Amino acid sequence: MQQLPSRLLDNVVNEFNKLPGIGKKTALRLTLFMLNQSVEDAKMFTSAIDQMKNEVRICPQCHNIAENDLCEICSNPKRDASLICVVETIRELIAIENTGQYRGLYHVLGGRISPMDGIGPQNLNISTLEQRVAAGGIAEVILATSTTIEGDTTNFYLFRRLSAYNVPVSTLARGISVGDEIEYADEITLGRSLLNRVPYQGK
Amino acid sequence: MQQLPSRLLDNVVNEFNKLPGIGKKTALRLTLFMLNQSVEDAKMFTSAIDQMKNEVRICPQCHNIAENDLCEICSNPKRDASLICVVETIRELIAIENTGQYRGLYHVLGGRISPMDGIGPQNLNISTLEQRVAAGGIAEVILATSTTIEGDTTNFYLFRRLSAYNVPVSTLARGISVGDEIEYADEITLGRSLLNRVPYQGK
Repeated sequence: MQQLPSRLLDNVVNEFNKLPGIGKKTALRLTLFMLNQSVEDAKMFTSAIDQMKNEVRICPQCHNIAENDLCEICSNPKRDASLICVVETIRELIAIENTGQYRGLYHVLGGRISPMDGIGPQNLNISTLEQRVAAGGIAEVILATSTTIEGDTTNFYLFRRLSAYNVPVSTLARGISVGDEIEYADEITLGRSLLNRVPYQGK
Repeated sequence: MQQLPSRLLDNVVNEFNKLPGIGKKTALRLTLFMLNQSVEDAKMFTSAIDQMKNEVRICPQCHNIAENDLCEICSNPKRDASLICVVETIRELIAIENTGQYRGLYHVLGGRISPMDGIGPQNLNISTLEQRVAAGGIAEVILATSTTIEGDTTNFYLFRRLSAYNVPVSTLARGISVGDEIEYADEITLGRSLLNRVPYQGK
């Protein structure tokens, strides 16, 4: 790869290069952009990251990120504390929040059971979920893991673990995406959406 | 755009989003990656940028980036100080350095004459180039600006300015790229490479 005229630049290129999806060429472009930024703008960039790393907390209840003790969702009295939606990472939490359709709480597992990657149930935030359910007051647990083999495995494992507590456990509906053509849907999704058909509601 | 569960994250996403070619989705991905990094790794990232911004200097002779007073190239006694290669930015300097074919010094203009962008000769590092040539001891000035109208304009302007000093001025050879098919070369490049044909050297 390219020789840079300064070790200082080289360090920044290498650091940008560590980010996902950023190759050496893009890293150089970002570094030269940074070099041309004002000192104040560059400081804003690095301060935002430093501040995030120093101040962000993990919510002890749901493992979402938090700024104070409990996260904004757990500490919001308007949320329905009897609903727990189990997600793999905060990425899915953000996606579900953005639907505006869910008013309950979450539980962030921190991943999914994946023997290939050496991730077992003991590596995930499952015991804290069990404690929340065992503490009572939970009307429903919604499993919102991904629709992959690992996600289904995680779902099944959680379902078994939670079955001891006599609490309703549901999963997200699988089916044809809104706006999709039926002829192009894959057979498994189409089959599931047939099996899980719902009464016609006029829309 | 997505609502984030923390203002701290939101700040970092916005900062990443300011970088060229980084949209909101990629910015979120990079932010979550940063969030999962160890505090030490994140500190290495931000320190590298802070250090670059604080310690990098501009070489007073050639306007290349430097860590000390003169840049590494200008202060290298093994370089041929009688050759000056004029480039637009340090990006081109890096590209030429990586050919390993050039052992002279550089002069970084800081852009090219572009009336459309409001960049005139007075905005570029041209007077310092003239001073270097006027000081004597220069055997050749190589104009390595880009092969665009603005680059050619800059070339022509520099040629006129330097013609007072009785120093040979050359430009990079234009021609067919190594590995290119002649039938697919554009007419202007093909025409130039015919005009500037060189004696056969057996390779």
